[in-house]
Amino acid sequence: MSIFEKLESEVRSYSRGWPVVFDRAVGSRLYAEDGTPYLDFFAGAGALNYGHNNPVLKQALLDYIARDGVTHALDMFTVAKRDLLETFQQNILQPRELDYKLIFPGPGGANAVEAALKLARKVTGKESVINFTNAFHGMTLGALSVTGNSMKRSGAGIPLVHATPMPYDHYFDGAYPDFLYFERLLDDSGSGLNEPAAVIVETVQGEGGINAASLEWLRGLSDLCQRHNILLIVDDVQMGCGRTGPFFSFEDAGIKPDMVCLSKSIGGYGLPMALTLIKPELDVWEPGEHNGTFRGISPAFVTAAEALRTYWADDELEKSTRAKGERIGAALQGIVEAYPEANLTAKGRGLARGLEFENGETAGKVCAAAFERGLLMETSGPDGEVAKMLPPLTLTDAEVGEGLEIIDASVKAVLGK
Amino acid sequence: MSIFEKLESEVRSYSRGWPVVFDRAVGSRLYAEDGTPYLDFFAGAGALNYGHNNPVLKQALLDYIARDGVTHALDMFTVAKRDLLETFQQNILQPRELDYKLIFPGPGGANAVEAALKLARKVTGKESVINFTNAFHGMTLGALSVTGNSMKRSGAGIPLVHATPMPYDHYFDGAYPDFLYFERLLDDSGSGLNEPAAVIVETVQGEGGINAASLEWLRGLSDLCQRHNILLIVDDVQMGCGRTGPFFSFEDAGIKPDMVCLSKSIGGYGLPMALTLIKPELDVWEPGEHNGTFRGISPAFVTAAEALRTYWADDELEKSTRAKGERIGAALQGIVEAYPEANLTAKGRGLARGLEFENGETAGKVCAAAFERGLLMETSGPDGEVAKMLPPLTLTDAEVGEGLEIIDASVKAVLGK
Amino acid sequence: MSIFEKLESEVRSYSRGWPVVFDRAVGSRLYAEDGTPYLDFFAGAGALNYGHNNPVLKQALLDYIARDGVTHALDMFTVAKRDLLETFQQNILQPRELDYKLIFPGPGGANAVEAALKLARKVTGKESVINFTNAFHGMTLGALSVTGNSMKRSGAGIPLVHATPMPYDHYFDGAYPDFLYFERLLDDSGSGLNEPAAVIVETVQGEGGINAASLEWLRGLSDLCQRHNILLIVDDVQMGCGRTGPFFSFEDAGIKPDMVCLSKSIGGYGLPMALTLIKPELDVWEPGEHNGTFRGISPAFVTAAEALRTYWADDELEKSTRAKGERIGAALQGIVEAYPEANLTAKGRGLARGLEFENGETAGKVCAAAFERGLLMETSGPDGEVAKMLPPLTLTDAEVGEGLEIIDASVKAVLGK
Amino acid sequence: MSIFEKLESEVRSYSRGWPVVFDRAVGSRLYAEDGTPYLDFFAGAGALNYGHNNPVLKQALLDYIARDGVTHALDMFTVAKRDLLETFQQNILQPRELDYKLIFPGPGGANAVEAALKLARKVTGKESVINFTNAFHGMTLGALSVTGNSMKRSGAGIPLVHATPMPYDHYFDGAYPDFLYFERLLDDSGSGLNEPAAVIVETVQGEGGINAASLEWLRGLSDLCQRHNILLIVDDVQMGCGRTGPFFSFEDAGIKPDMVCLSKSIGGYGLPMALTLIKPELDVWEPGEHNGTFRGISPAFVTAAEALRTYWADDELEKSTRAKGERIGAALQGIVEAYPEANLTAKGRGLARGLEFENGETAGKVCAAAFERGLLMETSGPDGEVAKMLPPLTLTDAEVGEGLEIIDASVKAVLGK
Repeated sequence: MSIFEKLESEVRSYSRGWPVVFDRAVGSRLYAEDGTPYLDFFAGAGALNYGHNNPVLKQALLDYIARDGVTHALDMFTVAKRDLLETFQQNILQPRELDYKLIFPGPGGANAVEAALKLARKVTGKESVINFTNAFHGMTLGALSVTGNSMKRSGAGIPLVHATPMPYDHYFDGAYPDFLYFERLLDDSGSGLNEPAAVIVETVQGEGGINAASLEWLRGLSDLCQRHNILLIVDDVQMGCGRTGPFFSFEDAGIKPDMVCLSKSIGGYGLPMALTLIKPELDVWEPGEHNGTFRGISPAFVTAAEALRTYWADDELEKSTRAKGERIGAALQGIVEAYPEANLTAKGRGLARGLEFENGETAGKVCAAAFERGLLMETSGPDGEVAKMLPPLTLTDAEVGEGLEIIDASVKAVLGK
Repeated sequence: MSIFEKLESEVRSYSRGWPVVFDRAVGSRLYAEDGTPYLDFFAGAGALNYGHNNPVLKQALLDYIARDGVTHALDMFTVAKRDLLETFQQNILQPRELDYKLIFPGPGGANAVEAALKLARKVTGKESVINFTNAFHGMTLGALSVTGNSMKRSGAGIPLVHATPMPYDHYFDGAYPDFLYFERLLDDSGSGLNEPAAVIVETVQGEGGINAASLEWLRGLSDLCQRHNILLIVDDVQMGCGRTGPFFSFEDAGIKPDMVCLSKSIGGYGLPMALTLIKPELDVWEPGEHNGTFRGISPAFVTAAEALRTYWADDELEKSTRAKGERIGAALQGIVEAYPEANLTAKGRGLARGLEFENGETAGKVCAAAFERGLLMETSGPDGEVAKMLPPLTLTDAEVGEGLEIIDASVKAVLGK
Repeated sequence: MSIFEKLESEVRSYSRGWPVVFDRAVGSRLYAEDGTPYLDFFAGAGALNYGHNNPVLKQALLDYIARDGVTHALDMFTVAKRDLLETFQQNILQPRELDYKLIFPGPGGANAVEAALKLARKVTGKESVINFTNAFHGMTLGALSVTGNSMKRSGAGIPLVHATPMPYDHYFDGAYPDFLYFERLLDDSGSGLNEPAAVIVETVQGEGGINAASLEWLRGLSDLCQRHNILLIVDDVQMGCGRTGPFFSFEDAGIKPDMVCLSKSIGGYGLPMALTLIKPELDVWEPGEHNGTFRGISPAFVTAAEALRTYWADDELEKSTRAKGERIGAALQGIVEAYPEANLTAKGRGLARGLEFENGETAGKVCAAAFERGLLMETSGPDGEVAKMLPPLTLTDAEVGEGLEIIDASVKAVLGK
Repeated sequence: MSIFEKLESEVRSYSRGWPVVFDRAVGSRLYAEDGTPYLDFFAGAGALNYGHNNPVLKQALLDYIARDGVTHALDMFTVAKRDLLETFQQNILQPRELDYKLIFPGPGGANAVEAALKLARKVTGKESVINFTNAFHGMTLGALSVTGNSMKRSGAGIPLVHATPMPYDHYFDGAYPDFLYFERLLDDSGSGLNEPAAVIVETVQGEGGINAASLEWLRGLSDLCQRHNILLIVDDVQMGCGRTGPFFSFEDAGIKPDMVCLSKSIGGYGLPMALTLIKPELDVWEPGEHNGTFRGISPAFVTAAEALRTYWADDELEKSTRAKGERIGAALQGIVEAYPEANLTAKGRGLARGLEFENGETAGKVCAAAFERGLLMETSGPDGEVAKMLPPLTLTDAEVGEGLEIIDASVKAVLGK
């Protein structure tokens, strides 16, 4: 029995599907300790939009560490934070005419969500929150209470209350008007729905199965929130930082959420970092009312600022992501059409793509076949029925092609033909 | 208005007391961007036990980054994780005859606490948890529900239930038997106390005001938990990794908790990392039942393993911590005696020390006076009435002396005489 | 200021619409202290199905009191309880082939609901319950948590959680398939819906606005519960005891709920009494696990048994209720058609009837006009937009006519024409 | 198997200890259907302070029913209610200089408690409530959440939160200062105690084991509540209406609670009725915000008013209760002293008396022995270790003697000697 199996809790998961020991990584590739390369279509579950150990960010990081830049700084003022704030304002907020203040809520996406929910409740004086079917927002109690997956919810050990799930876009395959149920409950003072402080939503549900809400649906949700005086929180932890093309995944819909949660790729290099963006009028915190040890990880600030400078000074990455995304989408559609009897569905937007199989067993076999062929790809969806593709945004066209070939071969290996 | 004040949420706190912009840091010192040095008696709230940018760890980190060691690895098997597991087993668990499995619960201390609480509830099928007066366990909803501070609790925006506070050691100045109330409620089936899944405790309450529980009290608590079949969780996030002398703060008491939460200094270099240690028989998780993006921060594993090799292969650091702690304790006692009318109290254990003033205003003035003199020191306690000292364990004897002189001068400046 | 206004809390409600002091009552009529008679189309909110001071029940009650039959008996065995149990079994359960055990849950309908919810949770080990939009189940915390009205919910002063409202029949005017949303959430393990212990439903929502679920919908609900292993609780507090025709309001649908709540008219004479009927296999209580002072009100048992003997030995009352109900329904439909521009709707089943106006103000004016004309009638629905008719089932045909004439005149007085 | 055993739920309890079928009752005696008389030292768990079928009240009740006085009146104005309000004001409130408004909260004591808790939360905007060890306040979810008994709490099926138990008087045998723990937690902003809306307390805990709080303790509690701006709710459901001597059990302590819950004997004749008394400034309800079907049970109002006129126009009953209570107390003390090795304790105040045995088994045997000898007496306390005596206040001196003789004989039969 390896030291991993002996000492690490049974809760570990990814190592079960990919039972090798990884050592190095560059760009779109991870290398096992024996040197075997793996093309990474998972990218740290969206935490590595700029690839593994991106050389530009790496140099900035090495320089900062070498010169003894402060590493851990709580929420003190630092040169590294100032650079990040200025770059974020200049390259992200100003060009998009967005007016947000930044909370450094702690190191991970769940912290960004917890801070948003706490503040929404504090601002409105209401406890209840609306989430959506198949949402994923994190594993701490507040974030877990707005997450859909029943296995993960049962891990809480206490009843998760204070949230009511509403149907996400296309939950009924488009057969019924959007927000029919939600708005009827809000309008009816006898509905029994506790008046919500906020709605929390992902524009594309990654863990939920690469469900991409339409832009109309997102606009409709934003309108509904404004009509009913409900705060709109977009959890852009996985879909932000360019995953769907634009920096914020909600830009195409033309909406301006009240709060935005960022994490995963915001740090650029895979180091823990998170942000909660809030409209300035919502900034009613007392000093220290929300705090934490890891809110000033300067190395992550350094790589974050460098990533914003390198990739978000113009729209090249955005365009490339859209183009590559469409290429993958078309290829997946081709697979769908090649196996008409298999009832496949191609899903997603930008470089968040999925191929839905009839059940989790088949999707799992396809991912296993891909792993054998040197491609890292995971399943998602309530029953793991979707093969999920989240490659680094910086992958090359050749790598797109390579990945698609493996996917093709893996599907064929599993579905026959 | 600076970019900090303009763009960062009002929730920021430390930057209010220390209104300078920090840039570099080495060992026990932080440097403002104008080069002004500050002796750090705060050490990242206990996250920098080995000092800022410790050169041994720094080299390991630079090497790892330079060679493109994988940075972000979710919970995959990696060379870096294997090294950490082996070193932890060899240098920490085996010599102490401790049998724990490790959960990588997410990047911060709150994640370690959330995972412990979730698992305790899952294992026992009970929801209620016992915490202690003036406890601090974190800001996510689960961790916040076992935290004492009323301002921080009110930030939750929902009633925090499922926890009942019990009096910490010396809550009544030793006038009453330990656990009098707690055990009476447990023994009485009509008491109305919901049967607890677990007790969560800090051996020294850092945020609560450097309240050090006696070893007898800790043993008594452990015995009580065993008698009543309650899981004992020690939150060693701040007091572990040698802060009180031994690696685990509970070692001196001779107890073996069912679960232990580690974070802050476990990563060694100030990068986010956390661990939840659990007795093997408690490892009842389903794969993936608790997960998260930042559970495999390999650079932190690298510096963590290096720190364990450098500082925990023998008992030198432990001895030095005890010695320096006693020196500071004695000096603080000297201050107490020098101001008999001021009702000061010297508190703490190891290098977790505190000087309690009559109120938060006085303590705040002393910390401000220290800052003017080049020393970083924060207040803690329910009303901020305790000046808290958490210097790096690696500070030199000269730095101890330097710090004590500044403290002396600062107290004098505030209390007169 | 009267003693009522001076001494009674502002929470009082019915006395505001009917500001006279009532003294006596017989059959379908209440008399003010000055002798003014009022035809009662409210019947104690459904608690007086056999009329005020029904002479047959009155004699049994007087005899019992006169002979010093035990009045208050907790849950002891009594002659009065035995007679009730035997009569209930013989006249109610056996003819309908229903196999239930009886809980005496306390004096009122809310107690019957609280006992059902407690037992459903105990049996299943699940906390969550499904209720329906515009449901009303009572004012104690457990019952209130499954009640829809937002004003009443806000009276709780704590977040009411553990229940999720689903759309009642015709909530979307029949435009969408029944249970579309409910069943989709149940089938989807990622929906975020906490797995429910039970569904609680009224077959006709009295307080909610006389919304009568179709028999198909009720059967569909029962099927859904069986498919998903969810307990079905019918709250028949207001609609049971013959209000819609048959003794149980669910009989026409041909379903057999797992639990049934009875109160209001079960006691026959208006004295407090309640029953929770449960399938025998659900009887997992510990002795005394649910108790209460007023579970053995023998005078109510006496009138209850007498009412069962008098009215439920044959189907005469049932037939008469159906006939009178149809007559009232037809008359209301006539009013609807007479005021096409007013958008009225005739609602209900059996002798639970309603006339829905465009808003609560109009409905209130009609009820006030009826009161002026000597008819007691209340509003219901989320905005009080439905004039509700719940006359005693024993009213005469002449009284039906008299009431309808007043309603006709009152509508005319308000809507003109 | 009898119809009782066949048809009634296993939750029944009293019928297990007294397995006879009762038929009639007069004064202090119940009669089984075979004519066997039983002296009643239980009195409907305190609901029959004026004895069974008290002839004065009986006549008023028969007259009212015979003349067709309205029986069921929701919260309408009635002649019966006016008489009750006037009598309550004149005979109860005015002589005691108490200024309360009356809520008719529903038929039972739990309703009185639920209404008080709801209003306290609404008035203060806080959710948390303080209850006491071994409290009993009822079985509906709100009332159950402030009840101590663990078996009854577990019946809820959901975590009962929002209440924190504090030690009742003498919980530590007087060894520690009163309110030591409670006030320390309130004073400490870091204690983790949620700020309470209200304290709910019984002056003598009947179900909890006839624990009588000292008058000093009650005054201390009232003072503490005023100092900390916490509403004081006295649950006088069992101990009010003269059970301890004065009409309100808190009169001797000289305190004026913010709210008082009454039920059980307030109706006089054993018919369900309850009242919640509130200080006028707390009357912030919306009309109908709390409602219910059985709030205007006029027959109970008639017997309630008659009881107030008959027994509370002077202090004769109060004096007699005190005298008889002292006689019983002295006799119990005699038994205690007669069995020094048995560690008995005599408990109680007024005509709420108890004899505590070493365990529930012994107390149960004594009650069983008493039943064999014709005396009804129940156990209470967390383990049923207290034989509880709650005779009608109207029992004769001869009946006191008769009861004491049976108790004497029953103790002897069980403890030997």
